[in-house]
Amino acid sequence: MHPVERFHRLHVPGDPILLPNAWDLPSARVLERSGFDFIGTTSLGVSAVAGKSDGTGSARDETVDLARLLGRLGAGVTVDIEAGFDDDPAVVADLVAELASFGIVGVNIEDGRPDETLAPVELQVQKIEAIRLAAPVFFINARTDPYWVKQDDDSFSVALERALRYCDAGADGIFVPGVSESGVIADLAEAVPAPLNILYQPGGPTVLDLARLGVARVSCGSLLFRGALGAIEALAADIRSGRQVSGAGIPSYSALQSW
Amino acid sequence: MHPVERFHRLHVPGDPILLPNAWDLPSARVLERSGFDFIGTTSLGVSAVAGKSDGTGSARDETVDLARLLGRLGAGVTVDIEAGFDDDPAVVADLVAELASFGIVGVNIEDGRPDETLAPVELQVQKIEAIRLAAPVFFINARTDPYWVKQDDDSFSVALERALRYCDAGADGIFVPGVSESGVIADLAEAVPAPLNILYQPGGPTVLDLARLGVARVSCGSLLFRGALGAIEALAADIRSGRQVSGAGIPSYSALQSW
Repeated sequence: MHPVERFHRLHVPGDPILLPNAWDLPSARVLERSGFDFIGTTSLGVSAVAGKSDGTGSARDETVDLARLLGRLGAGVTVDIEAGFDDDPAVVADLVAELASFGIVGVNIEDGRPDETLAPVELQVQKIEAIRLAAPVFFINARTDPYWVKQDDDSFSVALERALRYCDAGADGIFVPGVSESGVIADLAEAVPAPLNILYQPGGPTVLDLARLGVARVSCGSLLFRGALGAIEALAADIRSGRQVSGAGIPSYSALQSW
Repeated sequence: MHPVERFHRLHVPGDPILLPNAWDLPSARVLERSGFDFIGTTSLGVSAVAGKSDGTGSARDETVDLARLLGRLGAGVTVDIEAGFDDDPAVVADLVAELASFGIVGVNIEDGRPDETLAPVELQVQKIEAIRLAAPVFFINARTDPYWVKQDDDSFSVALERALRYCDAGADGIFVPGVSESGVIADLAEAVPAPLNILYQPGGPTVLDLARLGVARVSCGSLLFRGALGAIEALAADIRSGRQVSGAGIPSYSALQSW
């Protein structure tokens, strides 16, 4: 079965695919080694490595370079392309065609903007339509951000209205980050006519909870990237304090030397 | 005081500087934020990010690119240049001059080779002499690997003989990785006529132990890089298992968005 088809079939409401998000080759490889057959990327991590600000459309080249490396992995990879790094739908479509040529199975494209507004729905629809034409066999995950950005209308109504438009434009799945109330998640899963993707958040619903609510895909967003930074901060502090540090759970040098 | 001079003065036998090692901009920034005024790099991490094998001299360009980014940090940075990425001392000296132009305070240069032999001592001496001439105000940390690579002679004698030659050639400090026996470390600290650098290893002596043994610098090598990978493996496994994950100790998105 084609990897994109296999990826599609793993989006099962009530039995979601868990997608961990990498930001460089080693983080992707360790997740692949952990048994994840599909991996996402996080634009926060990719931007931070490049010394750029997330969500500002400035890390296009770094995203393409990373996709080229990750396309060679055995695991399937879906790429976070922010808002497509451009507002010309044809340019976004060219980017996606390039990613598809590397063996990338899908993208996530967002409508939130750096100024904390939502992109015009027509513009976002045009981008999704252009991607659909450029990459017929490809998983388009359309992210809508009314729970994250300031706007006057009811977040649920906006998310649903946009989800319907994005599905009509050819999106294969809908991602609504920033929701953690069980009732809202269940209502979204019921109303959205495509697999619903929810962002995993510490302290929020577990993946088992999200499964029961009808979610079809759970993403880790930037959590693993931020967790890695927290871990090295803690490990360095332990060493500095003179504590005895355990090597348990830490891959050996030789396991990584020829990655 | 010039950062290189400040870095020199922190190499105190019995009160060692602890050098955590970064492999990209975010790992360096989080260590700087943790209060480390000086940071090293780890060639394992830099190589792995590039999809290359550590210690094979293949990640020169990526090392230079990273040094250019890290040179802008407030923390001082010393760069792991493997064996200099070349066997022509003039080429190695050019590399170091370039690093110094970015504000880098020092390098670590090793004599272990990918085929698990030691480089000829004369060649290593020529490289150190060339670096010394190219970068008079700079901390040259000369690493000698007899405890890591196969060789016929007694490791202690070889390490000491090479340490003396490297100091004569202009090295400011001597790094002997792979030693964890207290008696051997104390003997090295006593015999080597320059600040002794020891690699921190889980299960080995703590930094307090190393201080008591007369060590002047403790490096983390690839440990933080490997620890970060272990941490994301564990975090992803926790999420997958349906456990409730804590966000404690994990930096927030907003803390990292505009790094």
